[in-house]
Amino acid sequence: MDSVTRLPIQRITAEGRIKTEDAVVRELPLTIFLNGKELITLLCSPSALDALAAGYLFSEGIIKNRDEIGEIAVDAGGGMVRVSATRDIEPDAWSLSKPIITSAGKKRSLLNTAGFTGQSLIESGVTISAGETMALVNEFQRRSDVFQATGGVHSAALCDTREIIVFADDIGRHNAIDKVLGHCLLQGIAADDRIVVTSGRIPSEILLKAARARVPIIISVSAPTDLGVKLADSLGITVIGFARGDRMNVYTHAERVT
Amino acid sequence: MDSVTRLPIQRITAEGRIKTEDAVVRELPLTIFLNGKELITLLCSPSALDALAAGYLFSEGIIKNRDEIGEIAVDAGGGMVRVSATRDIEPDAWSLSKPIITSAGKKRSLLNTAGFTGQSLIESGVTISAGETMALVNEFQRRSDVFQATGGVHSAALCDTREIIVFADDIGRHNAIDKVLGHCLLQGIAADDRIVVTSGRIPSEILLKAARARVPIIISVSAPTDLGVKLADSLGITVIGFARGDRMNVYTHAERVT
Repeated sequence: MDSVTRLPIQRITAEGRIKTEDAVVRELPLTIFLNGKELITLLCSPSALDALAAGYLFSEGIIKNRDEIGEIAVDAGGGMVRVSATRDIEPDAWSLSKPIITSAGKKRSLLNTAGFTGQSLIESGVTISAGETMALVNEFQRRSDVFQATGGVHSAALCDTREIIVFADDIGRHNAIDKVLGHCLLQGIAADDRIVVTSGRIPSEILLKAARARVPIIISVSAPTDLGVKLADSLGITVIGFARGDRMNVYTHAERVT
Repeated sequence: MDSVTRLPIQRITAEGRIKTEDAVVRELPLTIFLNGKELITLLCSPSALDALAAGYLFSEGIIKNRDEIGEIAVDAGGGMVRVSATRDIEPDAWSLSKPIITSAGKKRSLLNTAGFTGQSLIESGVTISAGETMALVNEFQRRSDVFQATGGVHSAALCDTREIIVFADDIGRHNAIDKVLGHCLLQGIAADDRIVVTSGRIPSEILLKAARARVPIIISVSAPTDLGVKLADSLGITVIGFARGDRMNVYTHAERVT
């Protein structure tokens, strides 16, 4: 299924009104079933649906590694992905409706508040130069061609310091990251000691997805939030924001930017 | 609580690296309790939290009108809003984990697939001229000053054809719309026969929020998705996208654009 379709529109400009067609990004409601049980419906772009399902399960902490995934059956037309896990997964472990603060009235630590516990510090010694960062972001922007056509898509990539290794796009920035991490999981590509680049902002949820994959550096052409920055600082992740042209802001763990 | 904070950063440019501060948008995990029961945690900007809670409950179809809301108690520091409803609300009515397709393997109509049923066609006779649209969008862009400071916030507004009536911003485009609709609900401002303007894209979820408030026209400076366009067409809502400078695309119900 193409990620872009064409729809009739009326275009109004200073010159007047014309009937024409416009490229519009597709949005698919995709329901993920885990061991036959309905888990969640994501609104997504209809590409790389196996990677999306695997990446969602992994980056939300529902499955821990590749070995826990048996089969993935994609029915794109029906809007369904059926994943069989190789072990029983307790319904409690599914952080679905995501009540992040699970006990009313009790204050938690920042990491607990964000629904993220038991994660050890990321201590990767990988470094990236400012010039390498700029080159990666330029290549990343060039690859985001669906965005160019429709203005409606986020992109994400896993990179080393020299090149893009995995690239994905989606109408949701969360989904784009999940597609990248899911592809890595399914293909056995290590994400630790590597770099995630995203076209979207870096709020806490994106940061935590990267943390589950043990990614030490995350680069955005846009802005992080304060909670994203605080979590990155605690977890040992380097956050680079507003990486555009020959400029960038380093928010945390600047020792990895040489 | 301010929506923006300042954090230490290292800024790297062609001239070198300096230590400075940057404005970073705040992100608050806010848990909504309804009649004492934990409902959901939203990641949001810490402003207009009463409107956000009311708007979320309304635009998700959990409460139907102003009369169903009793008290709203906001504890911003604790990240909690407690809403008392004037009637018992059945847990089934809460579309929380949002399994959009509720029965595996059965195909549904488009509206059912999007979790939206029983909505009648919006037949508002309101119209807007291209010139009025451009003037509204210009004013809307001018008001989005938090975005200008941090690059991390979406804005939404309720307008008539001449001016902005309610304006809100948030790190989430869904939340920005909920804040606007919640403010309208709490203040008794009618949203039907009026116009929603959003800085974000128009996927199905945004379209359905506007539909619950019976808004006949939605304007974005960005792009809709195909599912957003199809739902708008079915529900009788005019979608105007890419409204920038003196240009715009009308995707549905162009009869309202004069």
